[in-house]
Amino acid sequence: MAIPGELGSFSHAAALAAHGSAIHLVPCADFRELFRTVAEASAEHGVVPIENSLTGSIHENYDLLRVHSLCVVGETKIRVRHCLIARPGTTLEQVGRVASHPVALAQCRKFFAAHPMLTAVPAYDTAGSVRDLMDGRMAADAAIASDLAARLYGGAVLREDLEDDPANFTRFLLVSRHPAPVRPAAASKTSLVVSLANVPGSLHRALGPFARRGLDLSKIESRPITGRPWEYVFYLDVLGDPIDVGAALAELAAETGGADSVRQLGTYVATGPVRERQLVVKES
Amino acid sequence: MAIPGELGSFSHAAALAAHGSAIHLVPCADFRELFRTVAEASAEHGVVPIENSLTGSIHENYDLLRVHSLCVVGETKIRVRHCLIARPGTTLEQVGRVASHPVALAQCRKFFAAHPMLTAVPAYDTAGSVRDLMDGRMAADAAIASDLAARLYGGAVLREDLEDDPANFTRFLLVSRHPAPVRPAAASKTSLVVSLANVPGSLHRALGPFARRGLDLSKIESRPITGRPWEYVFYLDVLGDPIDVGAALAELAAETGGADSVRQLGTYVATGPVRERQLVVKES
Repeated sequence: MAIPGELGSFSHAAALAAHGSAIHLVPCADFRELFRTVAEASAEHGVVPIENSLTGSIHENYDLLRVHSLCVVGETKIRVRHCLIARPGTTLEQVGRVASHPVALAQCRKFFAAHPMLTAVPAYDTAGSVRDLMDGRMAADAAIASDLAARLYGGAVLREDLEDDPANFTRFLLVSRHPAPVRPAAASKTSLVVSLANVPGSLHRALGPFARRGLDLSKIESRPITGRPWEYVFYLDVLGDPIDVGAALAELAAETGGADSVRQLGTYVATGPVRERQLVVKES
Repeated sequence: MAIPGELGSFSHAAALAAHGSAIHLVPCADFRELFRTVAEASAEHGVVPIENSLTGSIHENYDLLRVHSLCVVGETKIRVRHCLIARPGTTLEQVGRVASHPVALAQCRKFFAAHPMLTAVPAYDTAGSVRDLMDGRMAADAAIASDLAARLYGGAVLREDLEDDPANFTRFLLVSRHPAPVRPAAASKTSLVVSLANVPGSLHRALGPFARRGLDLSKIESRPITGRPWEYVFYLDVLGDPIDVGAALAELAAETGGADSVRQLGTYVATGPVRERQLVVKES
């Protein structure tokens, strides 16, 4: 299982939540390396953060889904709880510099406003900041990361739930070289990438076959097309029985005579609102 | 005219392209400060980068449009040409560390790959990197920014057009406290923020009144709603006569009995593909 970032990242937490602790993890330096790792069969699956409920879509991963030919075979949502983590014995009063990834720092603005003696220090990774802090390789007194990172690297959690808004969830996709076995069920989600003819009404027309079948569109994301300024591809997540989705796609193709191009990224079991399963970390 | 970032930024270049050099500029530390500056009448207008043709939408500014009650009164597109800028007398061979904003660095990946002796150094601003370089306050040998920044701060342009792809354009919105005078014309663009009832087919239904009038949707962007995970607002840019857009909005309101909420951000003259007007900088 390829994960982006260091052990203890929220992607690691998502992998544990979805698959338990009996998985072999392949940490990847960044999202590009993760896609390459799975594409080149150095890992069977990869965990890809795709959107956060506060900050929105992770564009780079939408783009990488299109560049690569991997399949989406599942999704997981986790609650992102930011913890203030320091070396054991440190008190909050002794903390001045607090390191973390800029996105994590941005999600804890109210905490920093309420603690003006703390200085936010941008770093390349949440869990990596904890590891570097514990190794003495980080010019900071504390880091913001998951409680999983604190447990993995032996840090002490000084404060929990630092995030500005408790409705802070991240949705992850599970990608693989091979599609998931399709099981007809209303709880399925199908992810599509659609290129539409550049004419008025094309998006409305493309959504018609889904709307007429009562298929719910759970997400639409547009991304620019390189080399064609102000033209876009659309990523659609459609909820419902894959048989109905297939019929909608056939209708769309018949209507437009193939003028639109559609790629099916994958059909998989849609998760409920959130899973907050207890995370179990194997002792090393 | 409030602009984000330092003088010499691409936003500054956009302000010059749209309004000439006879404008009083109010540089703002960040996008939040820019919106506040216009909202509090410290500037009549503000220049807001909203999307780039390679990297996509600038989410923070979509969110700030919704938080504030400013009106969109115009748009401008500029070609983003990245230049390698150093102190006069420096040769490319003498350059090791190259500073710029991370987005600019990311748009010049091929240049760095072709010049492995160069190290990319992330900094807070493109033009600010040039200013700091010239002041001797930057631990770098060169910076990546606009040629406008080179001219303003007295830097020498060592290389031009560093960007990976020449189709590198940024679109900027002009915001104000007061709406632009509406002039019925097919070349108008109307920007809307729409909250839809969370039922299957709601987006398809909402786009119907526009599609039936042949009104072109030039952009759709979805953003998460804070506190309601996996629900979204939609930003729509509709091209066409404002009278037709008004009729479409009335039809939408009648259809849904007001279940959807629509806010009109503004109606303004849509720009053509790009303007590459010669920039003129006043000598200081």
